[in-house]
Amino acid sequence: MTEANNGAPRELGVALLGMGNVGAEVVRIITENADDLRERIGASLVIRGIAVRDASRDRGVPRELLTTDPGALVRRDDVDIIIEVLGGIEPPRELIRTALEQGKSVVTANKALLAEYTGELAKAAAEANVDLYFEAAVAGAIPVVRPLMQSLAGDKVQRVAGIVNGTTNFILSAMDADGDDYDTVLAEAGRLGYAEADPTADVEGYDAASKAAILASIAFHTRVTAADVYREGITKVTAADLAAARKFDCTIKLLSICERVAGPDGAESVSARVYPALIPLSHPLATVNGAYNAVVVEAENAGRLMFYGQGAGGAPTASAVMGDVVMAARNKVHAGRGPLESTYASLPVIAIKDVPTRYYVAMNVLDRPGVLEGVAGEFAKHDVSIAAVRQEGDGEQTRLVVITHRAPDGALAQTVAALESMEAVTAVSSVLRMEGTDD
Amino acid sequence: MTEANNGAPRELGVALLGMGNVGAEVVRIITENADDLRERIGASLVIRGIAVRDASRDRGVPRELLTTDPGALVRRDDVDIIIEVLGGIEPPRELIRTALEQGKSVVTANKALLAEYTGELAKAAAEANVDLYFEAAVAGAIPVVRPLMQSLAGDKVQRVAGIVNGTTNFILSAMDADGDDYDTVLAEAGRLGYAEADPTADVEGYDAASKAAILASIAFHTRVTAADVYREGITKVTAADLAAARKFDCTIKLLSICERVAGPDGAESVSARVYPALIPLSHPLATVNGAYNAVVVEAENAGRLMFYGQGAGGAPTASAVMGDVVMAARNKVHAGRGPLESTYASLPVIAIKDVPTRYYVAMNVLDRPGVLEGVAGEFAKHDVSIAAVRQEGDGEQTRLVVITHRAPDGALAQTVAALESMEAVTAVSSVLRMEGTDD
Repeated sequence: MTEANNGAPRELGVALLGMGNVGAEVVRIITENADDLRERIGASLVIRGIAVRDASRDRGVPRELLTTDPGALVRRDDVDIIIEVLGGIEPPRELIRTALEQGKSVVTANKALLAEYTGELAKAAAEANVDLYFEAAVAGAIPVVRPLMQSLAGDKVQRVAGIVNGTTNFILSAMDADGDDYDTVLAEAGRLGYAEADPTADVEGYDAASKAAILASIAFHTRVTAADVYREGITKVTAADLAAARKFDCTIKLLSICERVAGPDGAESVSARVYPALIPLSHPLATVNGAYNAVVVEAENAGRLMFYGQGAGGAPTASAVMGDVVMAARNKVHAGRGPLESTYASLPVIAIKDVPTRYYVAMNVLDRPGVLEGVAGEFAKHDVSIAAVRQEGDGEQTRLVVITHRAPDGALAQTVAALESMEAVTAVSSVLRMEGTDD
Repeated sequence: MTEANNGAPRELGVALLGMGNVGAEVVRIITENADDLRERIGASLVIRGIAVRDASRDRGVPRELLTTDPGALVRRDDVDIIIEVLGGIEPPRELIRTALEQGKSVVTANKALLAEYTGELAKAAAEANVDLYFEAAVAGAIPVVRPLMQSLAGDKVQRVAGIVNGTTNFILSAMDADGDDYDTVLAEAGRLGYAEADPTADVEGYDAASKAAILASIAFHTRVTAADVYREGITKVTAADLAAARKFDCTIKLLSICERVAGPDGAESVSARVYPALIPLSHPLATVNGAYNAVVVEAENAGRLMFYGQGAGGAPTASAVMGDVVMAARNKVHAGRGPLESTYASLPVIAIKDVPTRYYVAMNVLDRPGVLEGVAGEFAKHDVSIAAVRQEGDGEQTRLVVITHRAPDGALAQTVAALESMEAVTAVSSVLRMEGTDD
């Protein structure tokens, strides 16, 4: 930093790693809002360099800012804050660690990296007494990380449940609205730019699982990594499931759920899981449609809070990045530091098999007397209590849908196996969970 | 603070000014969650004293903590953080200023005080390099102040619109749901504890106006005090207005609106105003019912964000207070300081007369030919464009309801005066504004 006569910095150097959608918006905001940012920080933000793969392409910024050597950029003496918007684990992991060790504060939107390596990065930040901020890693523009880490720092969070992946929410919303099946809507999402060419990370729930790991870690002061998060994607959800859900006054959403629960031994534990689930239409998350995100937080004293907004996109994500940049810059000016992750609670993370949930089971059955009785008998035999049943169609097309009360994963799996071996059940077509109800 | 061998504080002293609902919950949380708080802060929070009016009453805390001398409490050397939950302007103003001057950080939930004196208090905090936090002053448990000050620090806020008073929202929700009139529901709200014995501050919009002043100041980096906020209460809203609103697919909510607008001279300006307004049922604030609060923030890059939760009550408000206490304590441990208000933008605050809004005008008219033509003529004569009209009933009970496009306050006032002088108009029964539409 360049210092004024009184020792306070006059300029703070910023470097970007990556200049895709988000990076380009960050550069635009730093340039267009320079005067406001200077007033809010107490020093000017000056972009020292931008690491890109191809420095010869025109990106609307002075050519001399572009470099293909990010390693040199994170070591520059005149850089105070690194903004990482590359994505992926390596090289960002190595670059961020180096930057922190060099005393630079880091702002990143990299959920995949954070879901694995927040621990080592936070340690490096603590040792160097600098900031590691990542509001943009979860739910785009929506302030969630800062409220959980700071506003709720005096409360006890019980549960965080969110729709934090825009692609899958767009697909499920469209399937629900139009009655189209998954493949049709996925293709449409691709055409509209809501799904990537390879949509695996989104539709298989990997992205949502990374975010669940980040949220659970903060909410419960416990290290939770992506590997700890149970994960199911939305590829098996059918138009028939959405139609059936509607008959039970429900819709289906891909939820990231982080919960403080009693473990199998009764000890206070954490569950983190991602799956498509039926939720009642009256639930606040049921009306979150399209590419929007929302996160519901339940805390002992605050009660239920909801945060809603745009979960992705260049400008919204850049807004979250810039909030972090201003705070990190301000801390450089005032020689302070924001709170880092804390994992003192170190609660055990329990397996999905130890989390009882409600289930939706759809099956094709033969249209003959006694089928419902037989099906109900299998549920009862495995101690899975039925909450509601609907039978639809007739002849070969007869479909039976069962909603259960809470049951352990294992008991439900045994029930499904038993149903599949019944002569009258031609196929168990769907098994989904149900969330957002009290019973 | 009591220091450990390495110089870091081992204990931080806390003192409370006031022990009503919120104060009692704060004491409970500090006591029950002592271990968690110590881990999160890096030092133990120890309550040194609680200033109350009557120290002889049993409040479930050690009697020696109670004192009737708040002035001595804010000067104690072993107190690091003051929590002010007294309410009212004096003595809190003097006590907080003294505490800040003595180097203590202050957490307050006092919106009336902040809406007038944030300026002098923030100055004292800056001079002493301590924190002045007030998340609990707006929308109870809902994180709004910190997201606006920090998460959106790199963005440009265009608009903040919120339901930030639980009493009036309870009353309007109940009037809408049951068709009862204002007086009936107010009495019920009093019985249920949702309205105070003297409900003036709530129903006349003073409380919502204080919160609007605080929100506008933060959002626009401009000093806005309660006196700058245009204010109308809900006492004149009738069951007939709510029924008429419903016919236009609207409901009526008391809104606190802070907007970046073009002033009469075209210069960038701020408008802050509180009034009951029709909003479309599809608007996100329309479904916020009962004692719940919600705040919608629109920013240039983040787009539209919504924050929802419990806006009042002992435990929710205490949750917000404790988030601030943990952050202030953490800053004491790390010798840092959070961001204080900034008013560098100093935008002019414009008068309500210079803010064109849409209007709802209800009038009783004689049931004779040509009345609608005459009424429409008066609107046209004053350049107020009509968007929709409904005529109901017949004979002496004929009621005409007009929804206008945006019009200046002055033009509408002249129109209403002209309508009132029409022979065919027996009375203009209601004039309300309409918000939340694009046209």
